[in-house]
Amino acid sequence: MVEGILLILSGPSGVGKGTVCRYLLEIREALKLSISTTTRPPRPGEEEGKEYFFTTLPRFKEMIKDDSFLEWAVVHDHYYGTRREAVREMLASGQDLILEIDIQGAGQVRAKVPEAVSIFLAPPSMKCLEERITGRGTEDPDRISRRLDTARREMEAYSLYDYLVINDTVERAADLIDSIIDAEKSRISRGACPPGWGGETT
Amino acid sequence: MVEGILLILSGPSGVGKGTVCRYLLEIREALKLSISTTTRPPRPGEEEGKEYFFTTLPRFKEMIKDDSFLEWAVVHDHYYGTRREAVREMLASGQDLILEIDIQGAGQVRAKVPEAVSIFLAPPSMKCLEERITGRGTEDPDRISRRLDTARREMEAYSLYDYLVINDTVERAADLIDSIIDAEKSRISRGACPPGWGGETT
Repeated sequence: MVEGILLILSGPSGVGKGTVCRYLLEIREALKLSISTTTRPPRPGEEEGKEYFFTTLPRFKEMIKDDSFLEWAVVHDHYYGTRREAVREMLASGQDLILEIDIQGAGQVRAKVPEAVSIFLAPPSMKCLEERITGRGTEDPDRISRRLDTARREMEAYSLYDYLVINDTVERAADLIDSIIDAEKSRISRGACPPGWGGETT
Repeated sequence: MVEGILLILSGPSGVGKGTVCRYLLEIREALKLSISTTTRPPRPGEEEGKEYFFTTLPRFKEMIKDDSFLEWAVVHDHYYGTRREAVREMLASGQDLILEIDIQGAGQVRAKVPEAVSIFLAPPSMKCLEERITGRGTEDPDRISRRLDTARREMEAYSLYDYLVINDTVERAADLIDSIIDAEKSRISRGACPPGWGGETT
């Protein structure tokens, strides 16, 4: 059994990671989104193990202490994290997984899973990214200015990734990521071998 | 200017390298076939620098001594080789090149161009490869038996390559190689960078 691939999809705030990720999951059914663990209470309709694994704050903090997370973060007073064991089990069963994650979280995962394939999603230009951030609407100017500075700083992280994909259109970006997954699955260093070779006796 | 990629397409004798290569060159116009140098006299209609670079035996032997070849071989009394300089110039200009080559030649090129992307084309099964070799027709049994042994030995070289592609259909094999090229061109270690980054000032 060849292990599944852990794909890290990241990029600056506002680049469109979520949209590209959703489209990719549509065109590549064999790929699954990694499910986070959170202390946020379930919203109506959300199911345990589908959108999230739900847990309590004390339990979450225990898991942090036990180094149970590949990455975790606090967003709007709630904790979110990716459990190492959940990912490991899926990969071991041959399942390919994608983590759609911010730059900081991606750094944590790359450090803990060196065999993960990391993709940096970049805007077609800085101007384009700035327009997307300022165009989100009604936020106050200070907040927009901070978000712009953050995005510029986040862009500099690109050189730490394996692949660069430009989000010129959602379809093109997702198609290229789809090709990258096909290529990685054909890598001999990842266990690809001729039929009858590999584990089996020939 | 990002360098072009040197693609090595190899695999056992009889696997269908030539057919896959021709189809790939059709679907990916930006890819060019590397042109060999040979001591074989030109056939009617062949042009210098199109099918081959033609040269004399003394000149070819001089080039061997000067280590001018990435690989060379003798086939039916004629010498064939890939000139290092010709390849280097094409790559430096950004041109992607493919070398369709036997297992031994591929080993020579991999040793001299570590940044080359090597693809091992494998048959869907050993049985399938054997049928292709024996089915070629009117050769004598001893010759067929030798070719089968050679193919089996050649298969064992697969683990030295970067990628494994199964030639189940010409279209699928060529499409996967096309994806591998797209992926390799997106590798940050090969110089892929966000627009405005890289060589230019931002």
